[in-house]
Amino acid sequence: MLSKNKTKFILSLQKRKVREEYRLFIAEGDKIVREILASGLEVKTLVCKPEYLAGIPSDVKERIEEILPVKYEELKQLSSLSTPHNAMAVVRMTEHEMDMEEITRDIIPALDFIQDPGNMGTIIRAAGWFGIKNMVCSLNCVDIYNPKVIQATMGAFLNVKVHVCDLSEFLSSAQKKEVPVYGTVLDGESVYNHSLGRRGIILIGNESRGISEELLTFVTDRITIPKFTDSKYGIESLNAGMAASIIFSEFRRRG
Amino acid sequence: MLSKNKTKFILSLQKRKVREEYRLFIAEGDKIVREILASGLEVKTLVCKPEYLAGIPSDVKERIEEILPVKYEELKQLSSLSTPHNAMAVVRMTEHEMDMEEITRDIIPALDFIQDPGNMGTIIRAAGWFGIKNMVCSLNCVDIYNPKVIQATMGAFLNVKVHVCDLSEFLSSAQKKEVPVYGTVLDGESVYNHSLGRRGIILIGNESRGISEELLTFVTDRITIPKFTDSKYGIESLNAGMAASIIFSEFRRRG
Repeated sequence: MLSKNKTKFILSLQKRKVREEYRLFIAEGDKIVREILASGLEVKTLVCKPEYLAGIPSDVKERIEEILPVKYEELKQLSSLSTPHNAMAVVRMTEHEMDMEEITRDIIPALDFIQDPGNMGTIIRAAGWFGIKNMVCSLNCVDIYNPKVIQATMGAFLNVKVHVCDLSEFLSSAQKKEVPVYGTVLDGESVYNHSLGRRGIILIGNESRGISEELLTFVTDRITIPKFTDSKYGIESLNAGMAASIIFSEFRRRG
Repeated sequence: MLSKNKTKFILSLQKRKVREEYRLFIAEGDKIVREILASGLEVKTLVCKPEYLAGIPSDVKERIEEILPVKYEELKQLSSLSTPHNAMAVVRMTEHEMDMEEITRDIIPALDFIQDPGNMGTIIRAAGWFGIKNMVCSLNCVDIYNPKVIQATMGAFLNVKVHVCDLSEFLSSAQKKEVPVYGTVLDGESVYNHSLGRRGIILIGNESRGISEELLTFVTDRITIPKFTDSKYGIESLNAGMAASIIFSEFRRRG
C-alpha cells in the first residue's frame, strides 16, 4: 500500500526543482528498472507489482532501501505514461567527476541548448551504442533526469556520464589543451571527407538555432552532413538526434 | 469565426478512420503550412490568424478552397499541440502510383511494423534529407497522416512518396526483378564493410521485434550497424529512426 505522502512525493519528482533538492530521479519500466538494479545504482524506493519482485535476486533486493509492492492501479497513479509498466524506481543521482584529461582522450559530444527530451534521450542512447563514455551538456539543455529523457535513453544513461556545465568554460579549457572541437554547421566541410581524429569534442547545437555565436568561436573543425536533395520544401535540417547518430557513426567507423 | 460543425469536423480528423473516409489530413505550424501551400498540395481549409494570412501571396490564396481567419483561442481549440501555431491546414491526400520499375532504380526504405509516430516522422525526414524519393510501409505501420507523424517530418513528407502496401507482395515482386533487399539485423555484416549498391530495398524492422520472420526470407544482404561497447546494460538497440539515418548516410556516402 502506498501512503498519500509517498504518492505525493514520488509525483513531485516529475519536477526538476524537487529532483535537484533530493538528488533523486524516477525510472519507469520493467527492463530499465531491472538494469538499474543490476548496474549497482542506488535505488531508494522500488514500487512494483509483487510478481515483478519475485524475479529480483535476493542479494539485489537487500540493497534496495525501501520496497513497496503495489497493485497495478497504484502504479498507474504514479506513472507519467499512459500505459504504465510493472515497476518504477526512485533512484539516487550519481555525481560524476569531470577529469578533462581523461574525458578528452576519446570523442565527447557537447550539447548546446538541446531542449527536447526525446532528442536528448536519443543522443544519449546513440552515444551508448557507439561506446562513448562521457558527454557534456550546456546549462540550458533539458534536465537529463527528466523522466522523458530517462525513458528515451532506454537505459543507455547507465553507460554514459553526462556532465552539465558552462560550455564556454569547458571549451576554453579544451582549447588550452589543444583538443579539436568539431562543430556541426550548415556550411562546413562534408563529414565524409573531413579528417576525423580519435579524440575531440563534437559540438551539437539546437536544430533550429544551430550552435550559438559565442561557442562557434571555439570550433576548430567545421563539419556538415551533406544534403542529397535541392528541394525547397521541408528539408531544412536533420534533428539533433539523427545528426548526432550519423556523426558518431562516422567517427567510430574510421576510428 | 469557426462554426461548431467545422470545429467538430476538424477535430475528428485526428482519427484515422475519418481521415481515410474523407482523404484529408491536418498539418499544423506556420512553416509547414506555408510550405504545403507553396508545394501546390490541395488545401481544403486554411485556419489561421489574420496576420498569417497577410503573408500569403494572393495567387496562392486563390487556390485555397476555404479560408477561415480566427483568433488564437479558436486555433487552440483545434490544436493537438500544447502551444499551437498561427496556422493549421486541412490538406487533401495525394494518391501516388507505385511504379516498381521506377522506384527500384534508387534505394527505397521499406518499413515493417513501425508504430511510433515520432520514429516514422523521423525516418521520412531522414529520407528527405538524403534525397530518397519513395518509401514503402507495411499495412501495420502507424498511419503516415497521423498528425504526430506529419509534425515529426518537419515537412519532409512533401518530398517523399510513401506507399502503403503488403510488404511480402512488394518484396516478392522485387525479388522477381532481382532488386537486392538489405535487411538490418543484429548479426549481419557491418554496414561499413558490406558492399552497398546504388539501388535496392532497405528493410527496416521494429526496434524491439526486428524484421518479421516471413519478410526475412526475402533479405539478400544482411547488414548491421556495429556496436562499439560490450556493456550489458541499456544498449540493446538503436531506435529505428537513428538506424535508418545511419544506413541512408552510408548508402549516399558511397553511392
